[in-house]
Amino acid sequence: MHQGKYPLLDTVDFPLDLKRLDKRLLPEVCREVRDFIIDEVSENPGHFGASLGVVELTVALHYVYNTPYDKLVWDVGHQAYAHKILTGRRKLFACNRRYQGISGFPKMSESEYDAFGTGHSSTSISAALGLAVAAKMQGEQRQVVAIIGDGSMTGGMAFEGMNNAGIEKSNLLVILNDNKMAIDPSVGALNEYLTRITASPVYNRVKNEVWQRTARLKSIRLFLQKTIIAVKSSILRQSNLFEALNFRYFGPVDGHDVLQLVSTLEMMKNIPGPKLLHVLTVKGKGYKPAEENQTLWHAPGTFDRNTGERISASKAEQPPLYQHVFGETIVELAEQNDKIVGITPAMPTGSSLNIMMEKMPHRAFDVGIAEQHAVTFSAGLAAAGKIPFCNIYSSFMQRGYDSIIHDVALQNLHVVFCLDRSGLVGEDGATHHGAYDVAYLRCIPNMVVAAPMNEVELRNMMYTAQLPHRRTFSIRYPRGSGVTVQWQKPFEEIPVGKARLLRSGSHLAVLSLGHAGNFVEQAARRLEEEGIYVMHYDMRFAKPLDEEVLREVGRRFSRVITVEDGAIVGGMGSAVAEFFTENGYSVQVTRLGIPDRFVEHGPMSQLQAECGFDAAGIYRIAKTMVNG
Amino acid sequence: MHQGKYPLLDTVDFPLDLKRLDKRLLPEVCREVRDFIIDEVSENPGHFGASLGVVELTVALHYVYNTPYDKLVWDVGHQAYAHKILTGRRKLFACNRRYQGISGFPKMSESEYDAFGTGHSSTSISAALGLAVAAKMQGEQRQVVAIIGDGSMTGGMAFEGMNNAGIEKSNLLVILNDNKMAIDPSVGALNEYLTRITASPVYNRVKNEVWQRTARLKSIRLFLQKTIIAVKSSILRQSNLFEALNFRYFGPVDGHDVLQLVSTLEMMKNIPGPKLLHVLTVKGKGYKPAEENQTLWHAPGTFDRNTGERISASKAEQPPLYQHVFGETIVELAEQNDKIVGITPAMPTGSSLNIMMEKMPHRAFDVGIAEQHAVTFSAGLAAAGKIPFCNIYSSFMQRGYDSIIHDVALQNLHVVFCLDRSGLVGEDGATHHGAYDVAYLRCIPNMVVAAPMNEVELRNMMYTAQLPHRRTFSIRYPRGSGVTVQWQKPFEEIPVGKARLLRSGSHLAVLSLGHAGNFVEQAARRLEEEGIYVMHYDMRFAKPLDEEVLREVGRRFSRVITVEDGAIVGGMGSAVAEFFTENGYSVQVTRLGIPDRFVEHGPMSQLQAECGFDAAGIYRIAKTMVNG
Repeated sequence: MHQGKYPLLDTVDFPLDLKRLDKRLLPEVCREVRDFIIDEVSENPGHFGASLGVVELTVALHYVYNTPYDKLVWDVGHQAYAHKILTGRRKLFACNRRYQGISGFPKMSESEYDAFGTGHSSTSISAALGLAVAAKMQGEQRQVVAIIGDGSMTGGMAFEGMNNAGIEKSNLLVILNDNKMAIDPSVGALNEYLTRITASPVYNRVKNEVWQRTARLKSIRLFLQKTIIAVKSSILRQSNLFEALNFRYFGPVDGHDVLQLVSTLEMMKNIPGPKLLHVLTVKGKGYKPAEENQTLWHAPGTFDRNTGERISASKAEQPPLYQHVFGETIVELAEQNDKIVGITPAMPTGSSLNIMMEKMPHRAFDVGIAEQHAVTFSAGLAAAGKIPFCNIYSSFMQRGYDSIIHDVALQNLHVVFCLDRSGLVGEDGATHHGAYDVAYLRCIPNMVVAAPMNEVELRNMMYTAQLPHRRTFSIRYPRGSGVTVQWQKPFEEIPVGKARLLRSGSHLAVLSLGHAGNFVEQAARRLEEEGIYVMHYDMRFAKPLDEEVLREVGRRFSRVITVEDGAIVGGMGSAVAEFFTENGYSVQVTRLGIPDRFVEHGPMSQLQAECGFDAAGIYRIAKTMVNG
Repeated sequence: MHQGKYPLLDTVDFPLDLKRLDKRLLPEVCREVRDFIIDEVSENPGHFGASLGVVELTVALHYVYNTPYDKLVWDVGHQAYAHKILTGRRKLFACNRRYQGISGFPKMSESEYDAFGTGHSSTSISAALGLAVAAKMQGEQRQVVAIIGDGSMTGGMAFEGMNNAGIEKSNLLVILNDNKMAIDPSVGALNEYLTRITASPVYNRVKNEVWQRTARLKSIRLFLQKTIIAVKSSILRQSNLFEALNFRYFGPVDGHDVLQLVSTLEMMKNIPGPKLLHVLTVKGKGYKPAEENQTLWHAPGTFDRNTGERISASKAEQPPLYQHVFGETIVELAEQNDKIVGITPAMPTGSSLNIMMEKMPHRAFDVGIAEQHAVTFSAGLAAAGKIPFCNIYSSFMQRGYDSIIHDVALQNLHVVFCLDRSGLVGEDGATHHGAYDVAYLRCIPNMVVAAPMNEVELRNMMYTAQLPHRRTFSIRYPRGSGVTVQWQKPFEEIPVGKARLLRSGSHLAVLSLGHAGNFVEQAARRLEEEGIYVMHYDMRFAKPLDEEVLREVGRRFSRVITVEDGAIVGGMGSAVAEFFTENGYSVQVTRLGIPDRFVEHGPMSQLQAECGFDAAGIYRIAKTMVNG
């Protein structure tokens, strides 16, 4: 397809091929890798800006280190495309993020070059320290490198890893990829600190000494570098946050100068103990539209690489994204209720809280990648009489789990958790599916677990959750669009713990939770054509359960299907099973949802079909149950 | 009881009473408060050393600040006894930690002076920031103070809070109570840093200037203090970890000089924005045995205050603590299997991993208060071929939840999670009960959820978990003692997912998980005396379930009781209900365990009775089910 376009890259299947090249060719390799990424991602959508930003760093790492013996741990993994391309997966890259294709994130089972799987942020230092300590125990001279962005560095877990690594004398290099961005711009004191030290004349003077004085003195360059860096290090020993944590700090260096990166890394390989290299990069580097709007081009979808025009179906008269309904509705509610505030841990755009942040900047907070803090900060606000809407993706909410129990529910505080991206999320795959939230939330006392079947329900659940007599409340809704074009209806309170009867029938009862109820309706219409009549309740709440409805269903039906876009172990169907067995109803309950295994990536509809809770799956099971 | 012993304290019911006293009397107040704590805790056991260490700080805070309008947030809360005594609870203190008495931790529902409830570590900065930001939004001039230990400061959440607080211009004071201890000595780079800056001549010079030069110049003291501290602050602006995060750093100051603390806090009240006061204290201060063995005297039980002798029943020929069985067994296993390593986040003594740390210092790791890191560090070690036993209390494991899913189970890594303190924990109460682990673990694919009924089972589960063909594994066991005096039997592999039949009967089946199976046996013996015969299976595993046994039970019984020391919502009983309903068995399942509400503190046996899963409760229900 791109034959002849990548003369150098075409010769590089694995890092060993790269190492054979003359160092002077590396800038050209970088140009080709970047071009390849632009070509591929413009046609097959994926994460874009992050990988463009670390092309030089990736090439330098594989040039200098002896991978896979040496270990590279990529934090989050959005940025690992160049790494994948250089480690045996260039030809597979057209199926990146596709069903049964390669993953968009590093994955141990996919390649020995993926030293540790990722997807969530801030894990790399801990994982890399584990690899490094194990190497030390085994007497291996292995080098272990964690590559972490400045955004991920705000996650508390990264600090926990640094605090521990600082006392382990293992060969750990942390590369701080400082591009001032998470998906949205980085926020927080650490970010301001990094800007300050980058701009500081002390730092720049040292940097200039190192790099300019030695520019033409190749033979003594390494010696000088070492000396000056050692001096610098001792000067800065008392004056740098990372040095305070026992890391030797180097940098900042230009992350787009591959030759400088190579010589820096070669020099640092010989320095034992924990060390940090501060690398300055530009997200989206080398593709102008992406450099200019970094948030938009984090994962832009398909685009015309020549014009930079993003290709997307017209959204006119289409149902909105659930996240958009959240974003608009919280503003509407906040206009009426001045207690309401909004909190997001580094996902203003992804959650659509950016709408509130723009309209009510003093009432909406981006707290950085910091889920635990986001939840407990919300608890503190609630303890002072505010009503925080704390919006966190379902799979990231796992990070805030203890905070939910210990700081919110135990004190029965009025915090409204909005779990976006609950259920299967599609191409981001196993790390990002929001499979477990119903199971992990419904065991918590005081918690309300709600899930809207459509946009109007989401609005009304948000309205209900902020009413003065409510306390701890959670609302889960999926990635993607709902079903209602005209969704901006007046608010109505929803009775908590009450289901909605959507369809009467006598052959079978189906109890659904959330958006998956729409699949039930599709299946039920098809079944009716065949003379099978289904009683369908949209349960709305996994907790509290509508016991009145369950009693009626238990009396009238011997067979029930439960449907939810979440783990069937411990989910809403499990709550129904608890109720029936506890109260002596003899009902066979078939639970449809995410089965008890990790589901990989692919289009949402395909994954739903694989799990068997799409309309076709529900239809099939219902028919078997009635006929069998 | 102690009439006349506390002439000053007897006049202080609330902080307002304290404020009325002449400042020069404060050292004497501190002496009385300390004495009162020693008197009380020697007779009614509780947390000891931490509260003794902050007597002066507590008196100073209540003297200077206008509580409860101003807010004090105590991190963890072990250290809040003086606070409770000075805020209306002196006379209630004899019922501290007792059933229906006051809580051993700050608790919002107990007192308006408890600004935020605690129990787990590292939450105070986030909660206090919430309170401070809300105050700012409401135009209140409220002061908010978080008091956090150096151990708690290693928890990532504290860093997340600092990172966010550094960009909010709210009135937040963080007091770093630096005593070099968590329950065990603090570890990590941050700890070394704090020691370094405390010993640094720059810091000490400034401190001496402030405090010595002004000692006798009372009239200009405040002015001088302000000036010198401002100068110091600007000098240190680039050279201090906390200043790097936009906090103004003050200290270190002597935390046992109450007058110095009062004048420092009075001065700092007028400084806007985020600020940190570094206070040096001694855990156990003022009681010599506690100063000399700080870990032992963290919570010593009852003791003779005059001799320092701890009063405890003789342990000879008694069953051991479960934690001790863990601690001895991991060493035995590690001697046979050199892949085994041990990890604890700051609980060497509490988990008994200290036995391994002593015998095999290079194979056992205390990573500080850092549950997320502990889990992912374990994952990294496992990815490199080690078999980590990661020991974390059940309620603290909630902190590592995402790491368990994302870093361990998803990659099916061979990490063995040991959840000590699972189930009700007694006097520590609602924040510490390990109620949810079966529910939150069994929804995770690849996870084995095991629970031993006695010491021998624990040993054999640990043995089984480390066998080469095993992968992700969890073992939960309770606080306190088991039932087997002779527990050091040779290891035997336990077939995973297989229950044990303990007793045959035809009236009723009881399925138990873990130590609570002993209560079932007691009840069953009593029932047999009355002619009621119970079939009792020790399920051993909540996941995978023994489906063969469940099929047999489902065929033979219409009534089943499940018993577990854990939440009945989502727990083992829920798994059983899922199985029966899915497979069409018509069985009424009564789930005994921790009900769907937060259970308070008290003796374990009393709480078990309250929840209804002690022997008497099981007997009662069984009898009703058979007769009714």
